[in-house]
Amino acid sequence: MFDKQEFVSKLVTEEKAKIVLLVMDGLGDIPVNGKTPLQAANTPNLDNLAKESDLGQTIPVLPGITPGSGPGHLSLFGYDPIKYQIGRGILEALGIGVEVGEKDVVARANFATWDGKVVLDRRAGRPATEESAKVVQLLSEKIKKIEDVEITFYPGKEHRFVVKFTGEGLGDKVTDADPQKEGHPMVWAEGLDEPSKKTARIVNELIKKIAEVLKDNPKINFALIRGFSKYPDLPKFPQVYKMKAGAIATYPMYRGLAKLVGMEIIETGQTVADEIKTLKEKWNDYDFFYVHVKKTDSYGEDGKFEEKVKVIEEVDAIIPEIVSLNPDVLVITGDHSTPVPLKAHSWHPVPLLIWSKYTRRGLSQAFNEFECARGTLGTIHASDVMTLALAYAGKLEKFGA
Amino acid sequence: MFDKQEFVSKLVTEEKAKIVLLVMDGLGDIPVNGKTPLQAANTPNLDNLAKESDLGQTIPVLPGITPGSGPGHLSLFGYDPIKYQIGRGILEALGIGVEVGEKDVVARANFATWDGKVVLDRRAGRPATEESAKVVQLLSEKIKKIEDVEITFYPGKEHRFVVKFTGEGLGDKVTDADPQKEGHPMVWAEGLDEPSKKTARIVNELIKKIAEVLKDNPKINFALIRGFSKYPDLPKFPQVYKMKAGAIATYPMYRGLAKLVGMEIIETGQTVADEIKTLKEKWNDYDFFYVHVKKTDSYGEDGKFEEKVKVIEEVDAIIPEIVSLNPDVLVITGDHSTPVPLKAHSWHPVPLLIWSKYTRRGLSQAFNEFECARGTLGTIHASDVMTLALAYAGKLEKFGA
Repeated sequence: MFDKQEFVSKLVTEEKAKIVLLVMDGLGDIPVNGKTPLQAANTPNLDNLAKESDLGQTIPVLPGITPGSGPGHLSLFGYDPIKYQIGRGILEALGIGVEVGEKDVVARANFATWDGKVVLDRRAGRPATEESAKVVQLLSEKIKKIEDVEITFYPGKEHRFVVKFTGEGLGDKVTDADPQKEGHPMVWAEGLDEPSKKTARIVNELIKKIAEVLKDNPKINFALIRGFSKYPDLPKFPQVYKMKAGAIATYPMYRGLAKLVGMEIIETGQTVADEIKTLKEKWNDYDFFYVHVKKTDSYGEDGKFEEKVKVIEEVDAIIPEIVSLNPDVLVITGDHSTPVPLKAHSWHPVPLLIWSKYTRRGLSQAFNEFECARGTLGTIHASDVMTLALAYAGKLEKFGA
Repeated sequence: MFDKQEFVSKLVTEEKAKIVLLVMDGLGDIPVNGKTPLQAANTPNLDNLAKESDLGQTIPVLPGITPGSGPGHLSLFGYDPIKYQIGRGILEALGIGVEVGEKDVVARANFATWDGKVVLDRRAGRPATEESAKVVQLLSEKIKKIEDVEITFYPGKEHRFVVKFTGEGLGDKVTDADPQKEGHPMVWAEGLDEPSKKTARIVNELIKKIAEVLKDNPKINFALIRGFSKYPDLPKFPQVYKMKAGAIATYPMYRGLAKLVGMEIIETGQTVADEIKTLKEKWNDYDFFYVHVKKTDSYGEDGKFEEKVKVIEEVDAIIPEIVSLNPDVLVITGDHSTPVPLKAHSWHPVPLLIWSKYTRRGLSQAFNEFECARGTLGTIHASDVMTLALAYAGKLEKFGA
């Protein structure tokens, strides 16, 4: 299979440049009463920037395909999101801030109810997050090791938690320990190669131990474990693009994704203002900054139009501060669309703005979905964004003579 | 090779939805006196729909490649038209309504003139269709079987006809029995594997028998046979997309293409009004409807601008009836362009409209080539249309977490 990133990487030079990739999560939307949040927001700074920028829209995976945060971000970082599929376990673990090492296998787990024969409820009646966390605490005290493998539990939301297996010779080609349907007998984990057989044995033993520890609890008395994954071996962003790369993100999932591709994680606070303060402080320490704004997605998921508008306006307000740092290239885009009316990620193309000295400026008057659909960059794959950023930064050699 | 359809099929859910794919054959055009037929036509309903839709344009195969009806339709149905190439024999057979079974090999044939040594005229002086049909009738009476293989003849236009070979162990890896050039000695069929060697033997024997039967006819006294093909084994549309699919088309070629991918053929009349009547009657019986309008292409091929405009207006008039059925997704597009000034299929991108609850509506004001070129969907491959239709219908899971 042709690997675009590998092709591009051969053209990358050591030229020094500053690139900022500002990702407004779930940015793209569809109109409500005739306007999208980007259109409804008062964004004088983004609109002024648009007048000097190249605009376009991106397809994160394929037209019609709704990406999760993993594929959406990998694509923006220049990775083929279909070639590099990140296991659900690792994403869940990254999402709650679990440190995953090279010898670890991580998996996501559900508390469940069973009667000793069949799984009655795959979510154990959806316990409150606090109740579930107490059970995770109990398991942490009672179960620390199986054979030579250390077991670590991490609480999640409601019935969900994460398990990390640390030991020698563990594989992740393990089928889900989950009957998928309620009222069915348990389906145990199976390893598809030798190292994975070891993992499967430990997993099945763990589930039996969990059942033993929780046997007096009427509802939370069993666990299903699935999505087994090791730390994926991805080409490293700083090597591929010859840039020291730092990630400024407030949520664990996005710090985790940045770490997966080899970016350094820069400590920051909880707000957009904190993130920009961090960007300024660390401006001299990195060539490439990935800055992640989460709340555009959160309010899209919650169906809150006005709140999504406010976050966009909040970002608009800090644009002059980014511009005053004088980056060679500033990219503003999203990892996918999260339309308010859908309350979910969607397949709609994502607005894209690239600002630099060398843009074909002058066509667009504002930054929104419609101007981007008719922009100078056209409709491109999100994994082309990094190539474009490098090009505008003068970091790519000519291809061929 | 990455198979997009296979990738998409893994994300398709059992969710129930109604999708209508309305194909106006050869829809795209180029301006004559400043307007394309779509622009010249009075289309208040299509234009109103455009205001609530996502518009774009499709590339059926590759930019610059002019597709035949086969690749044009396969691409719209979500199949890679380069991976799935349908033999000319089968398309010719489908075009005249021949039923092709799993054991059959079909081929297209020409009446020709030869002098016992060289082929003098590959088209036997282009006989009238009626004259040619009489010769086919004569052959049908005289030649019914060679070895254990049944031979069936079907008349076509002018010098053309179709032959169907029905028997055990027939292959279709057979070279053309055709010297390609006039004044050259005959080149006989050759089989490239064991089953195809049997077919080639029968084919060559058949041509000699035809020459024997027609030996007193000065012009129509020989036949060339080529484009050998069996029924192709395509992934089946209803399984791939988890939808019961029905095809409403007035011409055999398009019913045949729909049947190739596993759609059910719904009987209908000869007019657009008949097709819509059928759509209404069968509305509850299928999840997916492919509705084919032929005449936009026919008048393009004939170079008749005003007539093409009239067909577009005829379709415009029935749009409210389709909308009143309340489909989850209505797609209106063509399988390729057939510009009036070219009097032929062309490579120009094809207008695309997708109407549903979840469109990025509001940018476009009319349905025509220029609004589509600047629409919210951008320029996409025609094989992405099905993915988009499924997305808007809520029938696709998110890819990755």
